[in-house]
Amino acid sequence: MRILILGAAGMLGRKLAERLAHDGQLGGQSVDTLDLVDVITPAAPAGFKGEANCQAGDLSEPGTMAAMVRSRPDLIFHLAAIVSGEAEADLEKGYRINLDGTRLLLDAIRLEGEGKGWKPRVVFSSSLAVFGGSFPAVIPEEYVLTPQTSYGTQKLMGELLLADYARRGFLEGVGIRLPTICVRPGKPNRAASSFFSGIIREPLAGQEAILPVGEDVRHWMTSPRSAIGFLIHAATLDIALLGDRPNLSMPGLSVTVGEQIAALREVAGDRVAGLIRQERDPVIERIVAGWAQALDASRAEALGFTAEKHFTDIVWAHIEDELGGRIG
Amino acid sequence: MRILILGAAGMLGRKLAERLAHDGQLGGQSVDTLDLVDVITPAAPAGFKGEANCQAGDLSEPGTMAAMVRSRPDLIFHLAAIVSGEAEADLEKGYRINLDGTRLLLDAIRLEGEGKGWKPRVVFSSSLAVFGGSFPAVIPEEYVLTPQTSYGTQKLMGELLLADYARRGFLEGVGIRLPTICVRPGKPNRAASSFFSGIIREPLAGQEAILPVGEDVRHWMTSPRSAIGFLIHAATLDIALLGDRPNLSMPGLSVTVGEQIAALREVAGDRVAGLIRQERDPVIERIVAGWAQALDASRAEALGFTAEKHFTDIVWAHIEDELGGRIG
Repeated sequence: MRILILGAAGMLGRKLAERLAHDGQLGGQSVDTLDLVDVITPAAPAGFKGEANCQAGDLSEPGTMAAMVRSRPDLIFHLAAIVSGEAEADLEKGYRINLDGTRLLLDAIRLEGEGKGWKPRVVFSSSLAVFGGSFPAVIPEEYVLTPQTSYGTQKLMGELLLADYARRGFLEGVGIRLPTICVRPGKPNRAASSFFSGIIREPLAGQEAILPVGEDVRHWMTSPRSAIGFLIHAATLDIALLGDRPNLSMPGLSVTVGEQIAALREVAGDRVAGLIRQERDPVIERIVAGWAQALDASRAEALGFTAEKHFTDIVWAHIEDELGGRIG
Repeated sequence: MRILILGAAGMLGRKLAERLAHDGQLGGQSVDTLDLVDVITPAAPAGFKGEANCQAGDLSEPGTMAAMVRSRPDLIFHLAAIVSGEAEADLEKGYRINLDGTRLLLDAIRLEGEGKGWKPRVVFSSSLAVFGGSFPAVIPEEYVLTPQTSYGTQKLMGELLLADYARRGFLEGVGIRLPTICVRPGKPNRAASSFFSGIIREPLAGQEAILPVGEDVRHWMTSPRSAIGFLIHAATLDIALLGDRPNLSMPGLSVTVGEQIAALREVAGDRVAGLIRQERDPVIERIVAGWAQALDASRAEALGFTAEKHFTDIVWAHIEDELGGRIG
């Protein structure tokens, strides 16, 4: 099979390509070709036996998406996005990439496939930023979505487009609302959520980390490992089970920052946990205060999506996957 | 004050302009200028004392909206749309007018006003088509929106854009989800809901009407008179009361087609009611089967929006407003 990954140079895109290269198959079909696209040229995954086409492209340029889908991939992962902090700082860029980019992809699929028997599976990474405003402590599956950021608005508009184009038969759509990914490897990014990873990642690497919010802040998280599992599962599940709601809240773990720090201390000791320094940032505090703390993800759980149940498992996933299993 | 109406040649647009011309004021401010725009040149309302500028324009053409907002109206009614049946039949046209048109308007306002102290009120006519899929008999205020038509998808995307641009301070947004308008005057249109009006309007004019669905079909309706009342109220209410949810489900009346016919019989007699002929249309039946039957509109009611409580009142509103108070 042929698989296209948009946003392949991002953290999840790279890990997904590596997983597909490692497995060599998906749902029993061999992975023959990987088309990897991002705003910078993505790296080919090490050890991939098939053909990897790595390309740079601006997804919001007219024509880019048409060229991407001309080879008619069986499966498309659309992970490309401007993150929350940047989409809030640069309104036009956020709408251009997060809304127009998604729409151009879906329209390119429609125009390439309509009436010609090509109907790919499209897995779209949405976000819990679609929730916003006042909501209960645990947000029900059927709760109204009133995002309070431009990023959340754009992701929700992408979900709606995906659902409409799936309903009209142009594609098989699966939208997955990812929890905040923790622990993200690499450097801090411009997402307002960056510190949730930083306070685990930096201390484990022997570095100080800044905590810009209070320890009572509660949030919905999952590991990169689980997130890749969601993407793989979304690509292979029986599409008929989604009915008329192809967008799903993914399972996660509801933890406070204090519980994160306690888990880090339990796994890595006082010295490591002592590297976290609180330095409040009112802008980040205000953004984070509006975020979901816990979701009912029972639909996705019933469909077989799974995530960690304890934050120590999330810390260990980072140590195993990024640090070779060793602390300090 | 200066008021811009987009979609001013449509049924609601015309009635709104007539009402504003008749009242001569809105919320205590005199109405000095009406800018009336539609795809065909709208008529100036009779007897208007102020200046009426009537223009034809394609709202989805780049530049049209910028030209429209250059005069900085205090209030903008955005009523322009491709109706449900046509948006389903012509995907590209529906997205171009209903999504791009709305976005071009909001961006034109942003670019004209940002940092320059102009922040107009924008009243956006949304629709109960934003509801779809499985839902309870009475849809709660905080129920998830999963439209099952392209029209509903586009209206919901417009609501989300309006909310985001209002949140960012570019405008004062009020989105009102109109019930199906009944009795629409004039000719049948391409909305799948057209027959809800046709079965009252045509018999009252001595003509036969086709009923394409069963009498047990239940739907959420309001009169044109109430809909104009909603628009006027949305234009004048205290914007602070909307909080972070500027989109509101409007009140209406939940009636079955059978109850509509009984009310027509009560008001106009057996001969008139006998002019309805059932001729089922599976396409319309399938579309209508997915529509909301009743909503909880308590938020809007608490904000002072009001609608009819009995379908005979809706029949009488038509007779008074369109037929000079006389039957047959």
